[in-house]
Amino acid sequence: MGFLAVDRKIATIPQEVIARANAKLMDAHMADYDALAARLVRVNIDIEDLVEKLMAFSVGLPSWGMVSGGTRYARFPLPGEPTNVFEKVEDCSVVNQLAGLTPRVSLHFPWDKCDDYEALRQYTQTLGIGFDAINSNTFQDQTGQKRSYKFGSLSHSQEATRQQAIEHNLECLDIGKKLGSKALTVWIGDGSNFPGQVEFTDTLERYLESLRTVYGQLPDDWRLLIEHKMYEPAFYSTVIQDWGTSILCAQALGDKAQCLVDLGHHAPNVNIEMIVARLSQFGKLGGFHFNDSKYGDDDLDSGSINPFQLFLVFNELVSAEKRAERTGTRFTPSYMMDQTHNVTDPIESLLNSARAIAGAYVKALIVDRDAMRAYQEDNDVIMAHNSLRLAFESDVRAALAMARVRMGGAIDPIAAYRESGYRAHKAETRKARTELAGGIV
Amino acid sequence: MGFLAVDRKIATIPQEVIARANAKLMDAHMADYDALAARLVRVNIDIEDLVEKLMAFSVGLPSWGMVSGGTRYARFPLPGEPTNVFEKVEDCSVVNQLAGLTPRVSLHFPWDKCDDYEALRQYTQTLGIGFDAINSNTFQDQTGQKRSYKFGSLSHSQEATRQQAIEHNLECLDIGKKLGSKALTVWIGDGSNFPGQVEFTDTLERYLESLRTVYGQLPDDWRLLIEHKMYEPAFYSTVIQDWGTSILCAQALGDKAQCLVDLGHHAPNVNIEMIVARLSQFGKLGGFHFNDSKYGDDDLDSGSINPFQLFLVFNELVSAEKRAERTGTRFTPSYMMDQTHNVTDPIESLLNSARAIAGAYVKALIVDRDAMRAYQEDNDVIMAHNSLRLAFESDVRAALAMARVRMGGAIDPIAAYRESGYRAHKAETRKARTELAGGIV
Amino acid sequence: MGFLAVDRKIATIPQEVIARANAKLMDAHMADYDALAARLVRVNIDIEDLVEKLMAFSVGLPSWGMVSGGTRYARFPLPGEPTNVFEKVEDCSVVNQLAGLTPRVSLHFPWDKCDDYEALRQYTQTLGIGFDAINSNTFQDQTGQKRSYKFGSLSHSQEATRQQAIEHNLECLDIGKKLGSKALTVWIGDGSNFPGQVEFTDTLERYLESLRTVYGQLPDDWRLLIEHKMYEPAFYSTVIQDWGTSILCAQALGDKAQCLVDLGHHAPNVNIEMIVARLSQFGKLGGFHFNDSKYGDDDLDSGSINPFQLFLVFNELVSAEKRAERTGTRFTPSYMMDQTHNVTDPIESLLNSARAIAGAYVKALIVDRDAMRAYQEDNDVIMAHNSLRLAFESDVRAALAMARVRMGGAIDPIAAYRESGYRAHKAETRKARTELAGGIV
Amino acid sequence: MGFLAVDRKIATIPQEVIARANAKLMDAHMADYDALAARLVRVNIDIEDLVEKLMAFSVGLPSWGMVSGGTRYARFPLPGEPTNVFEKVEDCSVVNQLAGLTPRVSLHFPWDKCDDYEALRQYTQTLGIGFDAINSNTFQDQTGQKRSYKFGSLSHSQEATRQQAIEHNLECLDIGKKLGSKALTVWIGDGSNFPGQVEFTDTLERYLESLRTVYGQLPDDWRLLIEHKMYEPAFYSTVIQDWGTSILCAQALGDKAQCLVDLGHHAPNVNIEMIVARLSQFGKLGGFHFNDSKYGDDDLDSGSINPFQLFLVFNELVSAEKRAERTGTRFTPSYMMDQTHNVTDPIESLLNSARAIAGAYVKALIVDRDAMRAYQEDNDVIMAHNSLRLAFESDVRAALAMARVRMGGAIDPIAAYRESGYRAHKAETRKARTELAGGIV
Repeated sequence: MGFLAVDRKIATIPQEVIARANAKLMDAHMADYDALAARLVRVNIDIEDLVEKLMAFSVGLPSWGMVSGGTRYARFPLPGEPTNVFEKVEDCSVVNQLAGLTPRVSLHFPWDKCDDYEALRQYTQTLGIGFDAINSNTFQDQTGQKRSYKFGSLSHSQEATRQQAIEHNLECLDIGKKLGSKALTVWIGDGSNFPGQVEFTDTLERYLESLRTVYGQLPDDWRLLIEHKMYEPAFYSTVIQDWGTSILCAQALGDKAQCLVDLGHHAPNVNIEMIVARLSQFGKLGGFHFNDSKYGDDDLDSGSINPFQLFLVFNELVSAEKRAERTGTRFTPSYMMDQTHNVTDPIESLLNSARAIAGAYVKALIVDRDAMRAYQEDNDVIMAHNSLRLAFESDVRAALAMARVRMGGAIDPIAAYRESGYRAHKAETRKARTELAGGIV
Repeated sequence: MGFLAVDRKIATIPQEVIARANAKLMDAHMADYDALAARLVRVNIDIEDLVEKLMAFSVGLPSWGMVSGGTRYARFPLPGEPTNVFEKVEDCSVVNQLAGLTPRVSLHFPWDKCDDYEALRQYTQTLGIGFDAINSNTFQDQTGQKRSYKFGSLSHSQEATRQQAIEHNLECLDIGKKLGSKALTVWIGDGSNFPGQVEFTDTLERYLESLRTVYGQLPDDWRLLIEHKMYEPAFYSTVIQDWGTSILCAQALGDKAQCLVDLGHHAPNVNIEMIVARLSQFGKLGGFHFNDSKYGDDDLDSGSINPFQLFLVFNELVSAEKRAERTGTRFTPSYMMDQTHNVTDPIESLLNSARAIAGAYVKALIVDRDAMRAYQEDNDVIMAHNSLRLAFESDVRAALAMARVRMGGAIDPIAAYRESGYRAHKAETRKARTELAGGIV
Repeated sequence: MGFLAVDRKIATIPQEVIARANAKLMDAHMADYDALAARLVRVNIDIEDLVEKLMAFSVGLPSWGMVSGGTRYARFPLPGEPTNVFEKVEDCSVVNQLAGLTPRVSLHFPWDKCDDYEALRQYTQTLGIGFDAINSNTFQDQTGQKRSYKFGSLSHSQEATRQQAIEHNLECLDIGKKLGSKALTVWIGDGSNFPGQVEFTDTLERYLESLRTVYGQLPDDWRLLIEHKMYEPAFYSTVIQDWGTSILCAQALGDKAQCLVDLGHHAPNVNIEMIVARLSQFGKLGGFHFNDSKYGDDDLDSGSINPFQLFLVFNELVSAEKRAERTGTRFTPSYMMDQTHNVTDPIESLLNSARAIAGAYVKALIVDRDAMRAYQEDNDVIMAHNSLRLAFESDVRAALAMARVRMGGAIDPIAAYRESGYRAHKAETRKARTELAGGIV
Repeated sequence: MGFLAVDRKIATIPQEVIARANAKLMDAHMADYDALAARLVRVNIDIEDLVEKLMAFSVGLPSWGMVSGGTRYARFPLPGEPTNVFEKVEDCSVVNQLAGLTPRVSLHFPWDKCDDYEALRQYTQTLGIGFDAINSNTFQDQTGQKRSYKFGSLSHSQEATRQQAIEHNLECLDIGKKLGSKALTVWIGDGSNFPGQVEFTDTLERYLESLRTVYGQLPDDWRLLIEHKMYEPAFYSTVIQDWGTSILCAQALGDKAQCLVDLGHHAPNVNIEMIVARLSQFGKLGGFHFNDSKYGDDDLDSGSINPFQLFLVFNELVSAEKRAERTGTRFTPSYMMDQTHNVTDPIESLLNSARAIAGAYVKALIVDRDAMRAYQEDNDVIMAHNSLRLAFESDVRAALAMARVRMGGAIDPIAAYRESGYRAHKAETRKARTELAGGIV
């Protein structure tokens, strides 16, 4: 039975709900699957290989994305949204149960603080969920905090404030070690709103000095992921403003420091897939925050605005994977989602996004890379381009659905979720979050 | 004596503080003033004319800009910031006292609701402040509000929600009439975060239908100002997304409807001064929200990022003014500031911004328009350009200071403000605002 | 037999080449077609309806896009590219023969001037091609031209230059009447490179005055299409810089004046599909220049950068069509391509683009609009979004191929084209174009 | 006497023309100078120090900027523009004579090829001009060239084409050595117009391999300047697309490889002054191409669009200079202009731009850096910002004029140039360039 989160033991959609939902769609699904299989056979691809690779593929969920997000103007609560880290994990497990590709959660501190991390670890494990990168937060002040981050944190002009930010990151490491996480993602809001407010070079030097202390405490099997962002919350300059600064810092810190790419953190028009290729070429591609955007760091659902771009990113990732195989190097970036859900049920948005990401991945897998490379060598531009284009135009949804079904998930995850009545049940049993003020909390 | 806001009667910087501060700077100021006068005489400009025009020029202050703003991540409170509309007006009066160019405040409801508008009106009048446009707010939910604006307000798919938003706007009209305001600014956050979420045409039709009801109740000597914005809080589409939609709506509503330009509400690279010219040419330039931006609607201090653009905007305004004189038409846009102060004392930022705006205006006044027009006719590009460029390169600060001094203000407003100890005094007497959550409240 | 353009009578790919190419692919094609048909039946769509609509759909070809384009740096010629309007039309007919959706060519003067327009008309007719909008060119000087357009054309400060530009447009009307065209597209490069170079309002007034003269000579069954563009060749201001100025001018001119949308002529991040909706709502959507872009007016192949955006544009077009049906109004925008082919064979790029455009159209046709509207009314955001998303994720290539086959075209147009050896043949028989200088000629 | 370029010996504005022009303006100039001196004394700055620093400051001229530029649409010739490298140098000398800050010319090959480099060196020396960085050109094909750069040059998929591009660069080194140049600037147009056209990593590896060969031949006292650019002529991807790739390549090559910043080569909204600081911090800031832009690589006159940004760039340069002094390191970036003059006389545009650049430099010099740093440490944001803002608002034109006068130049360079009748004279004596085709030649 599902919905029994009270004792923090079981918190799932009843499997028979999924089975019932799948039964209605199974004939159509199998017809689509067979048609796709037949089509792929013609280009020498075994659909079963794809399904297998999909089942091995995974992307982490953001704990902070499980609640209704907000803008600086407002937040519009959703009845039944989670109110603590246990409930967030519970919702993650629902996504994973239905979509089958999201077996990890990325926590954010102090937002996800709790009294008993061992209990959290066990509870999460029970739900079949592991822990992805830990995120530190020094872009907000917390009630009772000694020193304010109003003017910066790791790069603050005053040592005591930098020290406080360093200690918070070290605390995150400690929590992460308890939970079994293997990476720390550091994104800071440090920067300036006015020309002249900060001296750029001093500020980056202080940032590096602070981060060296954190890096020094990093376990050997961990990664430190540096996340760059063009702007916001700082609106004139940002310390880690682009991938250029990010990779220089990662180089300065050492091998365990790598760069994290968030798809919404770039200047307008920038070719992001190329940045992915560059970071990979120089050995510093550490991970992803998937989402989509039209204007800035909009944190929209993956693939909802520019699905071709998402595919092109995965084209680089698969290409880098092949290159690593050829050269015998390791290529293991950490894939995570980072979305803000202002007008949808977060679980539904994440289910949709998991499908978008997996779809981009499988489309990248069916690109005929040998043919494409030959066209590239010959400068047969149209055919090289069409190697990607035709892969993208393929309808691979049946392969995705099959992977989900085989992992116990739903052919139509959103439909099954709705049929389960999960959120309505939670709206009755969870206490309400009523903050109307803007922002992310 | 100043600082006596307790009885809401007098709330000013003691005039002797200003006098003392000015005394220290007077000799230097007069030397600069004389040098500028001498320089202007050579190009047949009487500096006294400029000072006179400056003293007649004014720009409104935003009540919501008197407190520390925030992003979606956080807000960092400032000790002594105002906690209600009376205290906001009090701070406005300080800006006006020191800068002399800001004799009006633009209120925002329900943020500025109070029990006794007649008391507010009298108090404000006592402080020498009038009321600029009233702003309605249907982009946030308020505690106890019947229907949510999560999915829109004036353009919402359901009539009852639209009706609630209309009634809020009508209530704003009522309050404005009590206070002596003459304009209603309508900015809505309505839009969508996903392709397909709304039907663009239906949505705009509903918006227009709602606004027609509001317009129908507008007093004859009022204006309805429509404010467009490219994005945020909606991140895929926004109902009034640009000046094109804005002017078409203003045309559809009638003569009293005009367009309001916020300098931060445009797409990257857009030539905003040209939009100003177009709106003016087609009779629909109603007003301004001055601020500056580097990335989006950053709401930074006027002139802090691109002062030449601000000058080019004023070049169009002065040009439109001259055109109106020639054609015997009226040209009276309403000038207001709309800034968010995250890392500065709002009073200091507004003092700096008033200087920037007035500086752009006076530089536009010293452009030799007859010479420029002759160069333009002859396609003498460099000389036409230099007509603007050389005006911009002039240092007109002494003229600005003289206008301030003659209105009882300060040669160096920020220095005088700091010497007064105003904020420290307020930090002791006002109750603290401690919200740390993100956003604007 | 094909390739016999010498006598300007027949200029086609031999039909047996196409038949042979199709034969190899027919079984796979039919299998895909049947699978798609079966899938569509489940959502109550008859694939035959789609194919019929596709066969009725058409998009015009740009005569200037038949040659290798260039940037300001260079042009790299392609052996066998056309050297005059007859040869351009010949290449158009090849595209139409293979793709079946491009039965019209849009000419550009003076580039396409010839001695005998009646001969051109007959030749074109023989090839099964008609004439789309005529394009005037006052953004370049021609050898022997009396007055230069260096400083503008229809908006030039001097009357004689404006008059020359007007006369060129009237000459275009005359040529168009001889050929059977029904529209004149006016795009001008007028603008400025320096603040102050031109007075914005004067300039637009002169533009409107000039265009009124042209409009006055427009036959009753013609349209005047105004094309806006943000920048280039003018790099500070452009007279018709956006859809706002475009629609205001179209309103000022009259009913036969409408706006033309080029997908690459907008500011970064702008929501173009929304502009399409707005122009349609206000009765001024006159036509399209399809292409794609990543940075500016890149004139890349349609659907090569952001195919989802192209689909969203067609979603608006189909939506506007349905609205016109409901309201009994006419909605007949003119669809044309406007691409520059720097590194591909233009014929191959246009074949690919025709497929992209037709694909976007048919995907828009299979959107379940009734369901989507119901979701929109209910603010069921995810489901409203997925109404579009799932249509886009469909693989409709088999329907496109069937429409081509039924019109005598190719299942795989590029493959058939290559098998024909058309370009190699032309490389032998056409004289070479060797200009290496940058630009478009 | 001037204008005697026939024998390539003397080519200057007659000095008495300048003297006559200066005489008319001298009283006003001295009054302004004294007023500025008095103002600066109050902030402890000796104006004579500024003038001295200005006289030591210099910026190189682009040989390719001496002719009328063009867009991809057209070029509009200017009577009297130079037709070969000798005449270009002649025009450079006029700029230098009048503005006094531009004693070097940067050549571009093969555009500036000539038969006798020793004659060119001597002629240039006679005119008081030296040679700045040499620019290679592998973004265009030349008549008779063996292999085309249509699909790339240093990164081309075929070795023979890469080899040809390498050899061209080596030839540039040879020419530069003959002339006394000390740097090679490598900007390539290599990239792609279609996703899939090239493999990003292979392409960059080939680029680096090619450049290593060139670098290997670089004399010890030379620098190799790598110039990045976001896009154009390639419209989907560019090999050296941003400063991140640029600095990684410079690191890979070695100490003599550095990065060159062109102000128009960045994504919209990017904080360029921050990139300047980062390149400087990591020891790789090699030089500048100054210009201004509103939309893309517009190559507009320096300071004509965003003079505050230009000042902020110089603020970083002066700051880096001070830092180098403190740390005993070298900081000697090469300052050059790179502008395209489509609608002005290039000499006038360059005179105006020299003034803009020198003005930004001297404003950066008068920033009170000690005070600013103290404000930064204290997070006194407004005062730190105003340290820059007030320096920028200063009118430093009299200091610039004085530096020019002392070097034999003009108080008002454009006026003196016009009075000289130089261009009209050249229009009579130089043969006409009549290409109307678009682009840069």
